[in-house]
Amino acid sequence: MTALIGIDWGTTSFRAWRMGAGGEVLDTVGDGPGILAAGALPGGFGQALRDRIGDWLDGTPIITSGMITSRNGWVETPYLPLPLDAGALARSLTLHEGIHFVTGAVSDPDGPAPDVMRGEETEIIGHLAEGGEGGLFVLPGTHSKWAWAEGGRLTAFRTVMTGEVFAALRDHTILGRLIQPGPGSDDAFRRGVQAGQGDGALLARIFSARTLALMDRLAPDQIADYLSGLLIGDEVAQGARDASGPVTIIGRGDLAARYQAAFTMLGIDAQIAPPGMARRGLWEIARMGGLT
Amino acid sequence: MTALIGIDWGTTSFRAWRMGAGGEVLDTVGDGPGILAAGALPGGFGQALRDRIGDWLDGTPIITSGMITSRNGWVETPYLPLPLDAGALARSLTLHEGIHFVTGAVSDPDGPAPDVMRGEETEIIGHLAEGGEGGLFVLPGTHSKWAWAEGGRLTAFRTVMTGEVFAALRDHTILGRLIQPGPGSDDAFRRGVQAGQGDGALLARIFSARTLALMDRLAPDQIADYLSGLLIGDEVAQGARDASGPVTIIGRGDLAARYQAAFTMLGIDAQIAPPGMARRGLWEIARMGGLT
Repeated sequence: MTALIGIDWGTTSFRAWRMGAGGEVLDTVGDGPGILAAGALPGGFGQALRDRIGDWLDGTPIITSGMITSRNGWVETPYLPLPLDAGALARSLTLHEGIHFVTGAVSDPDGPAPDVMRGEETEIIGHLAEGGEGGLFVLPGTHSKWAWAEGGRLTAFRTVMTGEVFAALRDHTILGRLIQPGPGSDDAFRRGVQAGQGDGALLARIFSARTLALMDRLAPDQIADYLSGLLIGDEVAQGARDASGPVTIIGRGDLAARYQAAFTMLGIDAQIAPPGMARRGLWEIARMGGLT
Repeated sequence: MTALIGIDWGTTSFRAWRMGAGGEVLDTVGDGPGILAAGALPGGFGQALRDRIGDWLDGTPIITSGMITSRNGWVETPYLPLPLDAGALARSLTLHEGIHFVTGAVSDPDGPAPDVMRGEETEIIGHLAEGGEGGLFVLPGTHSKWAWAEGGRLTAFRTVMTGEVFAALRDHTILGRLIQPGPGSDDAFRRGVQAGQGDGALLARIFSARTLALMDRLAPDQIADYLSGLLIGDEVAQGARDASGPVTIIGRGDLAARYQAAFTMLGIDAQIAPPGMARRGLWEIARMGGLT
């Protein structure tokens, strides 16, 4: 008996879960089109749903979060201000074409550095619903999110463009010229982290990725890992200044492991959250909203 | 009566001066080929010289500095260690095909962030020879150089990739998507400097160039100036931590003025050096080396 269909729908990703009366997973679809691809289909987002999870569509409530509520998504919804919790997200659900949309969050909208997220708030709510204590959350990616939670509420966050800046430096500056692909070097990554955890002068330190290579102190197939370490080391050192309480990394694979290693090098214990936080958050918001 | 021909020969620039017995300028050529273009000529660097200043070549000593002594230049010369002064550069002149080459400098060759320069050392020597007191020197550009001098000697420097990182962010990340060209906005630049002079979390702050625009708090034709301000503000705030004594900007035009404005916003008085520092440095090194 299906109680809820949840969809984490991002710019380039689509993951859907069919959940039972206790929130347990009955079925999963992990490879649907992100909003860019889905929006370009002749039948749009509705067609994407029918294509991927058509056989689930029997009147069961559907809830979704992520960039699907952005300007290029299915319906654009206003951002919620901080602090916010699962109840606030549940009260702000937007019903559109029979689907419940979880909106995103805005930080410091009138201040010097306003910031926005769509989707990560649901993952953090999922962790808090699992009994997570709050503290600092890091969601690594093209645009990493750093978020702080306390008392079951998301209280602050910011976006750090580490992944995209890494790609721009590697592919479009002199730092990339000497790079050769390699199997991945933990040692070079850690050297980069060490160099990156200095006093903040990132624009000055990145040139070492070139000079060390010119002086044969960094092999061509280690430059990319070193540069990755420089940027992640800077990001983690800067962000960790504001760490209090537990640190939780919400992410997967090598990237999550690299962030954990960078925290460890700073003497900070960071846990990688178990998978499924987005689904867990969607369940919690749906439950608070009376959908289940 | 010509006493010396000096050439400041960079990757994409070539400036030559014919100087009289007191170092006074008798003639100038400012638009010759940089080393990339000159090296590609059928007759190479020699042809470039004959093409541009052939009528000066009467046996007068020729001295040159810049990337012309790099791996892609006319002759590759070893870097000199710090500290160095005009005498050390004069003693290390390399005579090759009848031309005297001033070599570059290396900082911290065995440390975690080695750094190199070719050409800027000559400009700084030029300023010191004019009676400059030393202190901090900033040479803005694609790769800015920050250098410290004391007692007539260059004692430390580092390279800051501000200009190239700006171009990579503008042209190859999401930050550039909303940019529209404009007449240049001092106000947006200053807002960026203000935002950039924070506690060092540059990777986090740059996202504001997008969010402020999304929220209609930054016009599309102001985004580029704001982003430029963010990066220069960060560079100047980080570098100024190590400022002691006078601050001298060696550069020209709008870019030098922007760096001066960023220093002013930090409460630091920075002077823009008069033009001609490279020529003045070449003269001084030639004089110390007995060429004049």
